[in-house]
Amino acid sequence: MIGGGFAGLAAARRLGGHPLEVTLVDQHNFHTFLPLLYQVATAGLEPADVAYPVRTVFGRDPNVMFRHGRATGVDLEARLVTLADGDALAYDHLVVATGAAAQFSGVPGAAEHARPLYTLGDARRLRNHLLATLEAADAHPESFDGGAPVFVVVGAGPTGVETAGALVELLDVCIRRDRLRIDPGRSRVVLVDAGDSVLPSFRAEAGRYAAGTLTGRGVEIRLAHPVAEVSPHGVRFADGQWLTAAAVVWAGGVTVDGTFAATLPVAKGRGGRIAVGHDLSVTGHPEVYVVGDAAAVPALPGGPAAPQLAQVAIQSGDHAARQILRRVAGVPTNPFTYIDKGIMAAIGRRAAVAQPRRGPVVRGTLGWLAWLGLHLVYLVGFRNRLTVLVNWFWRYLDWPSGPRLIVADAETEP
Amino acid sequence: MIGGGFAGLAAARRLGGHPLEVTLVDQHNFHTFLPLLYQVATAGLEPADVAYPVRTVFGRDPNVMFRHGRATGVDLEARLVTLADGDALAYDHLVVATGAAAQFSGVPGAAEHARPLYTLGDARRLRNHLLATLEAADAHPESFDGGAPVFVVVGAGPTGVETAGALVELLDVCIRRDRLRIDPGRSRVVLVDAGDSVLPSFRAEAGRYAAGTLTGRGVEIRLAHPVAEVSPHGVRFADGQWLTAAAVVWAGGVTVDGTFAATLPVAKGRGGRIAVGHDLSVTGHPEVYVVGDAAAVPALPGGPAAPQLAQVAIQSGDHAARQILRRVAGVPTNPFTYIDKGIMAAIGRRAAVAQPRRGPVVRGTLGWLAWLGLHLVYLVGFRNRLTVLVNWFWRYLDWPSGPRLIVADAETEP
Repeated sequence: MIGGGFAGLAAARRLGGHPLEVTLVDQHNFHTFLPLLYQVATAGLEPADVAYPVRTVFGRDPNVMFRHGRATGVDLEARLVTLADGDALAYDHLVVATGAAAQFSGVPGAAEHARPLYTLGDARRLRNHLLATLEAADAHPESFDGGAPVFVVVGAGPTGVETAGALVELLDVCIRRDRLRIDPGRSRVVLVDAGDSVLPSFRAEAGRYAAGTLTGRGVEIRLAHPVAEVSPHGVRFADGQWLTAAAVVWAGGVTVDGTFAATLPVAKGRGGRIAVGHDLSVTGHPEVYVVGDAAAVPALPGGPAAPQLAQVAIQSGDHAARQILRRVAGVPTNPFTYIDKGIMAAIGRRAAVAQPRRGPVVRGTLGWLAWLGLHLVYLVGFRNRLTVLVNWFWRYLDWPSGPRLIVADAETEP
Repeated sequence: MIGGGFAGLAAARRLGGHPLEVTLVDQHNFHTFLPLLYQVATAGLEPADVAYPVRTVFGRDPNVMFRHGRATGVDLEARLVTLADGDALAYDHLVVATGAAAQFSGVPGAAEHARPLYTLGDARRLRNHLLATLEAADAHPESFDGGAPVFVVVGAGPTGVETAGALVELLDVCIRRDRLRIDPGRSRVVLVDAGDSVLPSFRAEAGRYAAGTLTGRGVEIRLAHPVAEVSPHGVRFADGQWLTAAAVVWAGGVTVDGTFAATLPVAKGRGGRIAVGHDLSVTGHPEVYVVGDAAAVPALPGGPAAPQLAQVAIQSGDHAARQILRRVAGVPTNPFTYIDKGIMAAIGRRAAVAQPRRGPVVRGTLGWLAWLGLHLVYLVGFRNRLTVLVNWFWRYLDWPSGPRLIVADAETEP
């Protein structure tokens, strides 16, 4: 099991308690609940609220071991996973769940200067940068074009919508509660996208509701504005327009995390995702499964690849583990079928859209409650759920939200 | 007001609501509750549990402003505080509360290789190092002398006692709950001190109880063992003995934080602490007060300097603010008198010593409850109190304690 994300965790969980020795390898000793990372970045939640130690998850599954380390490659013939510290782990069955990374689509400067939101480290760095920028705006408003900072979010998918919504709330809390001397009329949050709709993966009515709500809360939306270049000081659009920005958050989609995938001598699909068969195993290596964002997981047997969603990762990880159990039992494997349970995105306090597989889009406070409930249920571990619930309850009551700490990283030391 | 520690915060709080413009300057945007830092270092609490944003503290005191920045010097004649970003803040009254730093007493290698526990950054780095070391011991026990890591705590005062006690609990949780493959009989926590008693600032019976309890929980205590040298691999004692250690925690006392104090053209007392008069003002500059660990605060008018304790910091900060109000009102200032409210130290779960100013030492579960209650009362902010209480309640019930996350710092990336 390589990778402790949704897919790897789901696979290991399915194998817990079975008479197999399972080793989960990850370079981090914790699982990160990615759907809430944007709240860490905007100081609504603490890192520990969305991260849970892998060892604690498997505290009661004595057959699941954790190995803290970075996998650097696989010897498919010798059936060995090599680690950065020089060790090699032998396997009978392997599940590769190495996940995704931000997709910069070759936009010049994006990889260097835009801030992705895909790891806990990303979220912490973005938060430190946002809060330090707001403090700088309090002390030196004249150093910002227009007298106040502008924050740009690139990508109007769920992550971009959630981040832009949380950013205006953070600005509001900082100005109203923390009395930062920032002119609310001058500080801007701008959501940009190359496409012509907000939440393009949702039905049109959900996108219109999200766009209307965000605009009502003060987010500027610029659709059909492809970003051509990112610099440390802002973004240039394809039409030559320049927008000065104190931070550019990159929510422009994900691709496979190529660091590990590239080392595998197997066929790659679109965007570097590893090609897998109907049962999610690699052609010619029925003992090797690739799941989650790392794989071009077919939504239906033989169909196109499923989107890179947490649901797909969880279901595919679980599926791979079930196939391992079938192989151990000497039973043929089954093809993977993705069950769409619907999608949802939060826009901010008391506003979200939830689009079930069938039936109408749920929005507003009801959508938000649905979003809240589902995310709490999925959050790993009781302790985390409780803390997150306390935080959200606070916020709901309009008390100051999570502690806005600038936890020292070299770049933010004043 | 320079410094957002106990002393600076107490001073600003006293001035809140008065017709004065108060600016509190700190390089961190949060106040750190130092007495619980050792729990962050040993993964019992999260950074956000012991840190509270300064702006949130003063959310309801519109006359108290916060300035995020590092003070680099004071022009006593022009009455200006200079900041690292080039700004200068004018003042009528100044309170210097720049705090303390670890005292390495000139031990070779200590400043470079020992790990102090005086800032939130110190605590995070120590925690990352401890957890990464334990993971390394799980993967490669043979790389440790004796087959398991040894942790050395230098200094048998309250911080050293609390850290050593928390370390054996962390080891126990990691081995028992997280199933780290570390031989509990080989991994050691060693508490060393140059003196011949544990908790020397307490009455002898408290020290004996602490020593007995720590030993019973598996801490090795080496008294009368001055450390002569610290290397990345362990410590050498004055008698030439060498002790290999995976981490050396430095709890060897504090001195003044000299970075700022050194820039002040005023007389220094013992250990670089700034000499102050009876009312805590600087001789010749009745508008400048120095309080807390930065000052050689006299315990009684004309008496010796008070110990560097949170209580002294809080009381002296408050006193300075009261004197500013007296001066504004045209009334002569009062001398400072330290009111000793007693001292306490936690040894671990259900064990602490509390020594009130009068009366017998309270210890065991009762001492622990006293310690717990007092620390909760003093923790700034309702939200923090609640989270800490939840954490402690968990731990009390012997559930796995706080999340043991290795939050990426360059040094711990595997």
